[in-house]
Amino acid sequence: MKLVTIDDIEAAARRIESDIVRTPLLAAGWGEPDRPLWLKPENLQPIGAFKIRGAFNALGRLGPEVRARGVVAYSSGNHAQAVAYAAAAFGVPAHIVMPEETPKVKVQATRGHGAQVVLCGAGQRESVAAELVESTGGVLIPPFDHPDVIAGQGTIGVEIATDLPDVASVFIPISGGGLASGVGTAIRALCPQARIFGVEPELAADTAEGLAAGHRVDWSVAQRNRTIADGLRSTPSALTFAHLQRVIDDVITVTEDQIRSAVAELAHRAHLVAEPSGAVALAGYRKAATPPGPAVVIVSGGNIEPPVLAEILSERQ
Amino acid sequence: MKLVTIDDIEAAARRIESDIVRTPLLAAGWGEPDRPLWLKPENLQPIGAFKIRGAFNALGRLGPEVRARGVVAYSSGNHAQAVAYAAAAFGVPAHIVMPEETPKVKVQATRGHGAQVVLCGAGQRESVAAELVESTGGVLIPPFDHPDVIAGQGTIGVEIATDLPDVASVFIPISGGGLASGVGTAIRALCPQARIFGVEPELAADTAEGLAAGHRVDWSVAQRNRTIADGLRSTPSALTFAHLQRVIDDVITVTEDQIRSAVAELAHRAHLVAEPSGAVALAGYRKAATPPGPAVVIVSGGNIEPPVLAEILSERQ
Repeated sequence: MKLVTIDDIEAAARRIESDIVRTPLLAAGWGEPDRPLWLKPENLQPIGAFKIRGAFNALGRLGPEVRARGVVAYSSGNHAQAVAYAAAAFGVPAHIVMPEETPKVKVQATRGHGAQVVLCGAGQRESVAAELVESTGGVLIPPFDHPDVIAGQGTIGVEIATDLPDVASVFIPISGGGLASGVGTAIRALCPQARIFGVEPELAADTAEGLAAGHRVDWSVAQRNRTIADGLRSTPSALTFAHLQRVIDDVITVTEDQIRSAVAELAHRAHLVAEPSGAVALAGYRKAATPPGPAVVIVSGGNIEPPVLAEILSERQ
Repeated sequence: MKLVTIDDIEAAARRIESDIVRTPLLAAGWGEPDRPLWLKPENLQPIGAFKIRGAFNALGRLGPEVRARGVVAYSSGNHAQAVAYAAAAFGVPAHIVMPEETPKVKVQATRGHGAQVVLCGAGQRESVAAELVESTGGVLIPPFDHPDVIAGQGTIGVEIATDLPDVASVFIPISGGGLASGVGTAIRALCPQARIFGVEPELAADTAEGLAAGHRVDWSVAQRNRTIADGLRSTPSALTFAHLQRVIDDVITVTEDQIRSAVAELAHRAHLVAEPSGAVALAGYRKAATPPGPAVVIVSGGNIEPPVLAEILSERQ
């Protein structure tokens, strides 16, 4: 299996440079004494999540004639908005397949970027997307199982290496594994001294179990859906799992309570609104006794439902 | 009266470059259709507010021998932490005078930066600070009434001009006027086409009234203290007022309800936690029919008390 290389990621960084926010690395003065804490606030990207990096790289890699036929994606989350946003920027049509139960606010946001949203029944989104590819001639942009998407997410690692070359540890949320595959590959190449930690909810810890076993393990959708971290309910593909095996030193698992506390900590101390999935990396940093030295935590997204944010901040003042 | 110049501000920008976060200008896709909205998130600075810029510039301008004697400041708010933080970075002692009723969390944060906190009774902070200057030989760093502080805050304007040279309007909170004086001076010089709007709470609108009258007006402390925007309860000095007369096109006043809505809007849509004072500029942008074209709103700080944040987000979901 051909894995994404640092050259792919550095090419992606040049390709998407003018389309994304070059997020600053924020020094948080309130980390663990022996592990100075730095935050990479990807919740400040236009659609509120890192996913925009992979979407822009994947669309940018298409030939103009192919891209002009449009793109197709299936997602109930940040990937939907990312592909819709990138397609609008390129001026090409986007069809986004979303489950019928997707919150209206997310459907509206996706439509707000000019995408055609196609609602579908449970378990049908891949087949509906395949039909759309057939009927529109568009290209499917998968949420993580694609080298161009992985390379796009990996550009975060290039920025970390530029801003903090002596980083000792990097904490990355793991779901489908696109982010961790890309960032891990970049950090391995550019900061070989750094340890790379994936972080998962205990309730969706299939990757922790899989990496320990040496092969992917099957957690049911119902199991993975128990966590509040709704962006971390996917499971790696063969492609991302191969990357994770190579670049992840260890996976830290965190409780739902620790995730909620991390959301509150980011709001109160870093002045950042993170969705639960975007706060798990901080929870992992807080929980594990990782090596001393500068630690970078990726705050991967900020799209939390307002009532959930209000609830967490009301219970943790 | 000698006013701060663009040269002073550009020199300040070079002086403090390595001490502050170069905050990105964030494109908010959800602004008014004819006035694309950009946010300058100064709540991401180390102490959670722009005040750190003026503090670093003021300390940096002192001769090494003078600076070594230490600095003195009086503040119950962000200026206290800014001076404490900058003094620690320079390795010089800081004495910060704070009113006895200052929330413990702010006293602890200031001590956490290594400063000596001196608590004092109501109305005594200036005299206590003067005594400390006498007894320690330190230099007083005022919160806004000083050219070096104004020039430091003005560096935000240089960054806006670099990132968005065709800006049509800039919205800046006004309290003592240091921020608006500095940013206004920079924008006038670098982006002469831009209109510059100060924003004040209706309950502390002494500058709006003063600029209309052509001279400073006296609102009592009790009057100004009514607003939830606790960072906007000061009143300009002769020095800042002279700057404001020259650089501010108009002052927009906003209600308490509009301020609270802006706090919620920033949390929900920009994923930024702003204190009420840090959200007034957005409230001003929303309220006033200002000229078309790109609009920059300065989110000046994020130090909101957790119960206040929880309350606002609970009532505005």
